[in-house]
Amino acid sequence: MTDDRPGGFLTLGDLEAAAAAKVPAEVWAFVQGGAGEETTLRANRDAFHRRTLRPRVLTGVDSLDLRTRILGQAVSAPFFVAPTAYQGLLHPDGEIATARAARDAGILGVFSTLSSCSLESIAESAPTGDRWFQLYLQPEFGASAQLVDRAQRAGYRALVLTVDMPVLANRDRQIRGGVAVDAPAPVGNGPDVQAPSRAPMPDGDHYTLRKETGATWEIVDRLRAHTSLPLVIKGILTGDDARKAVDHGARAVVVSNHGGRQLDGAPAALESLAEVVAAVGTEAEVYLDSGVRRGSDILMALALGAKGVGIGRPVLWALATGGEPGVARLFSLLKLDLATVMAVTGRTSISAIDASLLGTPRW
Amino acid sequence: MTDDRPGGFLTLGDLEAAAAAKVPAEVWAFVQGGAGEETTLRANRDAFHRRTLRPRVLTGVDSLDLRTRILGQAVSAPFFVAPTAYQGLLHPDGEIATARAARDAGILGVFSTLSSCSLESIAESAPTGDRWFQLYLQPEFGASAQLVDRAQRAGYRALVLTVDMPVLANRDRQIRGGVAVDAPAPVGNGPDVQAPSRAPMPDGDHYTLRKETGATWEIVDRLRAHTSLPLVIKGILTGDDARKAVDHGARAVVVSNHGGRQLDGAPAALESLAEVVAAVGTEAEVYLDSGVRRGSDILMALALGAKGVGIGRPVLWALATGGEPGVARLFSLLKLDLATVMAVTGRTSISAIDASLLGTPRW
Amino acid sequence: MTDDRPGGFLTLGDLEAAAAAKVPAEVWAFVQGGAGEETTLRANRDAFHRRTLRPRVLTGVDSLDLRTRILGQAVSAPFFVAPTAYQGLLHPDGEIATARAARDAGILGVFSTLSSCSLESIAESAPTGDRWFQLYLQPEFGASAQLVDRAQRAGYRALVLTVDMPVLANRDRQIRGGVAVDAPAPVGNGPDVQAPSRAPMPDGDHYTLRKETGATWEIVDRLRAHTSLPLVIKGILTGDDARKAVDHGARAVVVSNHGGRQLDGAPAALESLAEVVAAVGTEAEVYLDSGVRRGSDILMALALGAKGVGIGRPVLWALATGGEPGVARLFSLLKLDLATVMAVTGRTSISAIDASLLGTPRW
Amino acid sequence: MTDDRPGGFLTLGDLEAAAAAKVPAEVWAFVQGGAGEETTLRANRDAFHRRTLRPRVLTGVDSLDLRTRILGQAVSAPFFVAPTAYQGLLHPDGEIATARAARDAGILGVFSTLSSCSLESIAESAPTGDRWFQLYLQPEFGASAQLVDRAQRAGYRALVLTVDMPVLANRDRQIRGGVAVDAPAPVGNGPDVQAPSRAPMPDGDHYTLRKETGATWEIVDRLRAHTSLPLVIKGILTGDDARKAVDHGARAVVVSNHGGRQLDGAPAALESLAEVVAAVGTEAEVYLDSGVRRGSDILMALALGAKGVGIGRPVLWALATGGEPGVARLFSLLKLDLATVMAVTGRTSISAIDASLLGTPRW
Repeated sequence: MTDDRPGGFLTLGDLEAAAAAKVPAEVWAFVQGGAGEETTLRANRDAFHRRTLRPRVLTGVDSLDLRTRILGQAVSAPFFVAPTAYQGLLHPDGEIATARAARDAGILGVFSTLSSCSLESIAESAPTGDRWFQLYLQPEFGASAQLVDRAQRAGYRALVLTVDMPVLANRDRQIRGGVAVDAPAPVGNGPDVQAPSRAPMPDGDHYTLRKETGATWEIVDRLRAHTSLPLVIKGILTGDDARKAVDHGARAVVVSNHGGRQLDGAPAALESLAEVVAAVGTEAEVYLDSGVRRGSDILMALALGAKGVGIGRPVLWALATGGEPGVARLFSLLKLDLATVMAVTGRTSISAIDASLLGTPRW
Repeated sequence: MTDDRPGGFLTLGDLEAAAAAKVPAEVWAFVQGGAGEETTLRANRDAFHRRTLRPRVLTGVDSLDLRTRILGQAVSAPFFVAPTAYQGLLHPDGEIATARAARDAGILGVFSTLSSCSLESIAESAPTGDRWFQLYLQPEFGASAQLVDRAQRAGYRALVLTVDMPVLANRDRQIRGGVAVDAPAPVGNGPDVQAPSRAPMPDGDHYTLRKETGATWEIVDRLRAHTSLPLVIKGILTGDDARKAVDHGARAVVVSNHGGRQLDGAPAALESLAEVVAAVGTEAEVYLDSGVRRGSDILMALALGAKGVGIGRPVLWALATGGEPGVARLFSLLKLDLATVMAVTGRTSISAIDASLLGTPRW
Repeated sequence: MTDDRPGGFLTLGDLEAAAAAKVPAEVWAFVQGGAGEETTLRANRDAFHRRTLRPRVLTGVDSLDLRTRILGQAVSAPFFVAPTAYQGLLHPDGEIATARAARDAGILGVFSTLSSCSLESIAESAPTGDRWFQLYLQPEFGASAQLVDRAQRAGYRALVLTVDMPVLANRDRQIRGGVAVDAPAPVGNGPDVQAPSRAPMPDGDHYTLRKETGATWEIVDRLRAHTSLPLVIKGILTGDDARKAVDHGARAVVVSNHGGRQLDGAPAALESLAEVVAAVGTEAEVYLDSGVRRGSDILMALALGAKGVGIGRPVLWALATGGEPGVARLFSLLKLDLATVMAVTGRTSISAIDASLLGTPRW
Repeated sequence: MTDDRPGGFLTLGDLEAAAAAKVPAEVWAFVQGGAGEETTLRANRDAFHRRTLRPRVLTGVDSLDLRTRILGQAVSAPFFVAPTAYQGLLHPDGEIATARAARDAGILGVFSTLSSCSLESIAESAPTGDRWFQLYLQPEFGASAQLVDRAQRAGYRALVLTVDMPVLANRDRQIRGGVAVDAPAPVGNGPDVQAPSRAPMPDGDHYTLRKETGATWEIVDRLRAHTSLPLVIKGILTGDDARKAVDHGARAVVVSNHGGRQLDGAPAALESLAEVVAAVGTEAEVYLDSGVRRGSDILMALALGAKGVGIGRPVLWALATGGEPGVARLFSLLKLDLATVMAVTGRTSISAIDASLLGTPRW
C-alpha cells in the first residue's frame, strides 16, 4: 500500500518502525536506549498496558473539547513536547521543526539545554508558540543563570529544572551503538554549555564529580531568587521529593524516569503518579512523561491526576520520518486518538477525566 | 492429512488459521484488528485462560441438555450469533448463510445494521429462524426508527442497541491493512444507512461530531416508546451503566468491549461480567461477547451469571472457510465442545451451571 | 556427543526431545496432546515451576532412604507408573516392558483398561511386580466386573477407578494429528472392552450417551460389594469429591486432571492437592499425577501431602526411546534426582518430607 | 565497531555474549548451567528485575564513597569475588589473574577449594590482596583441617564453609555439554582434594554417601575449635539456618542458592535475603550471591540488608574474555555502575543505602 500522507507514517502504531528504518543505527541506539538492562524502559509501557479504563455509555458526547490549561496557559490539548536533546540528530531542522509544529498545533513545547538549535533560534522560528526552557544545571551557577536569562529574554514562559541526572547513567545500548554518550552532537546553545557528566571515573578511592552534581534543594531557592519564571521540577518519582519541590516554591513537578534512561530499577512513571499527586495536592500541578504513546495513555495519566503529559521519543521519531510535517502529523494523530478515547469513554472535556475512569489493573 | 469434512476446517482450534489462509489480507486486517495496540483484544482471551473450572465427578451424566431460553425464546444452546458487520466480505452469501446455519442449528442470530444483505433478505432466507436486529443509531431518529420498523416487520424479535461506538475507534491494524475503516463494504440495508463515524477530525479547536454521537439514555426511552420490541443494550462494561439500562427498561444487556475493537484499555469482557450481573440482579438478562471461542469459555461465562454468549469472529472465520456449511460446522463443534465440558464437569443442563464451578484464577 | 547409555537418552531433561525424534507424528500428537487449547496442560508444569522449596543445611545426610509404602505395600520410591493407554504405540513390547522395568526398580505399576497387552500377559511378564489395575467403566456393570475379576485373579493388588472421563474430551491436537481419538490402537484386554466414548454427538435436541456415563457414586459401592480389592478413585480435583470418595469407602484418591487431557480450564493438579489433602485427612491416601517430571516435583507433591506420585508421559517417552532399558533408565534417573534433592534439602527419608519444605510461590 | 579496550568487552551488558563467543561449548555448559530445568537460575535474575528503587533527588551528591568494611576489613567496594571452581578452564592464568585484579581493585577475593591454581600460588601472586578461603568439606576431617591450615598459613583471612552442596546436584546442561560434572578439571590444591560427590547412585535399596555428606552443625564447632580464622557459612536460604549459623559462632552468612546450580526450586537468593537479615540481626554480617550483575543489583541487596555481594559468573566471563585485564575491567565497570546508581538515587556512601530505597515490586 502506498502512503502519500505528509509525515511519512500512517498511524501512531507505525511511527516507531518508520523512524527505525530511516535513522542511522548509532542515532537510533541513542534515541531508543535506556539505562542498564532496560527493565524500567519496558516497565514504562507495561504500566500503561496493565491499567484498565471503565468506559461509560450514552453520556451525550455532543461535543469534544481537548483544550486545557498548563500552568495557566491555554493549550489545545493536555500533552506537550517533552524536552529531548540533540533533535538535530533526527532531522536537519532539529528543534525548529518541532517548535513550528507545536505552535501550529497549539501545543506547549519544552526545549532542552542541549538543543541542537539555539534557544533563540527556536523562539524566533515560532515566536507565537508557547515554550518552556529545560535547564541542566551548569557547573557554575552563573552559567546556569545566563541560560535562564537568555530563555526569559527569548520568551520562554517557564523554567523546567531536570533533577534526575546528577550524572549520566550507564547506557549500554548507546555505548554499544558507538555514540559518544555525553556529547553525541554539538550543543546549539553554545560550546560552553555543559551536558551532564558521565558517571564518575574511579581514581583510586576517589571519584571526580563535577560541581553541579552536589546541588541540593537550595539550588531551587537560588534559581527562584534569580528569575521570575515559574519553576517546574522534572524527574520526581516519590511523594517526599514532590513535597520538597512544592515547599521550595515549584509551581509544578514532572513525574518522570527520564524515559527509562537514568535508573534501571526505577518504577514506571505511571506507577509513581498517584503517590506524587497525593503528596502535592492542589499546591502545584503534576505532569508525567516516560512511555506515553497513545490517547488512552493520556487518559490514564489524567485520570490518575496529571494535568498534562510529555511526549518524548515519538516527537523524535516523527521528526525523523518527516521533519515538521511529521511532527505535525504526530500531534494531529495524538489529538484524534485522545478525542476518540474521550468519546468512547464518555468524556467530552478534559475536566471530566477523573479517577472514576480507572478500573482494576490487569493481572 | 486430507480433510473432506464440510466447512473446510477440522477442529475449533484450526478454524482461525484455516480462515487466515483464505481471506484477503485487507479483509483479514478488518476482521482481526482491534483498537490501538490490541491490549484489550488479547486480554479478552487471556481472561478465559486465567479462569479455572472445578469439575465434579460421578454426578450421573445420564443425559445432556444444552437447551435454554434467551429472552423467553427456546434455543438449542446458550450461544448466539453476535452481530458483526459486512459478512459479505467473508463469503458471497454473507448473512444469509449465517442465518440459515443458525436456523438449522436452533441458534439465535443477531444481525447488524451494517449487514451486507438487507435485513429483509436475511429474514426471508431463514424465515423460521430466531433473529434479533442490532441497531447503530442513525444521525436522525427517524432513520433509526425506520430501521427498527423494518426489522419488526421482518420478524426480528428484539432490538439490540449498540452503545459502545459513539465514534469508531482508532484501529491501526485495519488502517495499515488498507481498509476504508468506516465503509469497508456496501451496506445491505440501503445506501442511506450510516455506519458510525470515524473519530472526529480536529478543525482548529472544534471537533465535528455527528448528531447521534450525542445520544443519552433518553434515546432508550424514545426507542421503547417507538417500538414494542424488547430492548437489549450492547456494549456495557460497568455495573452503573447496566443499572441505568435496566432503569430505562432494557430487558437485557450485553457485556462486551466490541471484541477489543473500541477501547484499547477496556477490561476483558469476562472480567466485567460479575460486576454487571451483580448490578442487574434478576431484573434483566446478561449476555457476554468478546473472546468466546470454546465450550469451556461458555461454561465460564454462564457460571459467572451470563444467560448467553455471543460468537463473533469465529462465525466470520467459518463463513470464510466454508460458507453456510462452515458456519453449521462451527455451531455443531461448539455444541459438541460445550456438551463435552458439561459432561466432564458433571453438569447435565444449562441451569446446573453455577458459580460452584469457578475455581481460583491462575496466577 | 555420542551417547551409548542404555535407554537412548542422557538426562531427564533430554528425554522428551529424544522421544519426539523417534515417535511417528500422529502417535506423538496422541501422547502429547491435551484438551482444548492446552491451558491446563501447560499449567500443570507451571504450577511446579512456581513453587519454591526451602532447603535446610547441615542436617546430617548420613543416609538416604527413598523407600515408602503405598497402600501398605513397600515400594522403593514414592513414584509409580501412572496408567496410560496403548503403550504398544510407543514400543512393540508395550506394557510388558514397563511392567518389567517397574518390577526391577521396585516400583508400583498401574496398568490401564486400555493396555495394548492383556492384563494377564502383563502380570505374567513380571509376576513379582507390584501392580494395580485401572478401570474405565464399561457400559454394562457385568463387563466392568469381569475386568475386575480378571485383574484380581492375575494378582493386581488394587483397583483404580478413573472418574474424570465420563466422555472423552475434545482433543484438537490429537484430531489434527490424524489419530482415531477413541480407538488409536487395539485393546489388549479384548475386542469387547470399551474405551470411553467420544463426546456425545448432538442428534437434534438429544445427545446419545453411553450408559456408563451416567454413573454416580453408587457405582463405587457396587464395585466394593463386588470385589475385595482396595479401591482408589482417580481424577479428583475438589475436596468435596475427595470427601465423597472416602465416604464411599475409597482407600485412596488420585488428584489428577488426566495430564491436561480432559478439561481445559481445570486447575493444575498441584494447585488442587492441598484442598484434597485437607478434606481427606488421615482417612485415605492421596496421590497426584499430571505434570510430574523431576525429583523436585515429587518433593513438592509430598511436601503438600501426597503419599505418592504417578509418572505418565515420561514412561511413554522412555518406552519409545529405549523400550524396557529406557524405562529402567527413567526410573533410575528419577530416583537419583529425588535422592539428590532430598540430600540438598536435608531430608534423609520420605517421612521427613513435610510442609516445612514449602516456600512462598514465585510471582 | 572495533573495540580496543583492554578486557575484550565494552559494557557490563556485553560481557556474557563476549565470553560465550570465546569459551568452548562444554566449558560454557559447565559455567552457565544450573540445576534441573534452571527455574531457580532464571529466578535469580528475575528477582532483581522485579524490585524497584526509589531515587531521591537534589540530595547533594558532592562526593561518592564506595568503600566499606567486610568482616572488619576495609575494601574499595561492597562486592567481592565469589568462590568459583576451576577458573583455569576459562583462562590459563586461572585464579592468579583473578587474585591480581582483585588486589589491584582493592576487592576481596574468595577462592574455592577447587581452584585450578593452588591456594598458595594464588596468595603468592597477590600477597597484599585481601582473600578468604572457601572450604568444601573433605570426607575426613583431617583433610579439611589440613586445607584450613594451609589457607591460614598462606594469609587467607577467613574461612567460608559451603553448606549447600552435600552432594552435587543434577545438572542436565552440564551433562549434556559433555562435562565430567564432578571433575571437569584438575584441582590445584592437590590430587587428594575431593570435590563434592555426585548424587548417590542407588545400589538396590541403599545409597552410597560419602562421609562428609553426613555433616551436621557440629562440624562448625569443630572447625571453630581447630582454627582462629573467622567462619562464614555460605549457602543459607532460611532464617532458621542463619540463626543456627550465628548460634554456632559464624561471623557471617552468605545467602546463596549456588547460582541456581544446586536446587532447582530454591527461591531466588534476593527473595530470601530479608528473612535471613531479620533472623541474624546485628550478630553477624549477611552477604548475598546468585544473580548479581549490575550496580543496581548491588544497591538492592544492600538496601535489603546485605553488607556485601559476591560476583560469580561475571568474573569467569571476564577471565575468559581478557584474563587479568578482563577481570580488572569488570571490577572497574561494576564500580562505575554502582557509583552511578548511587549518584542517581542520591546516596553518597554505602552506609546511606538503606530500606528507604526500596519501592513496590513490579507486578
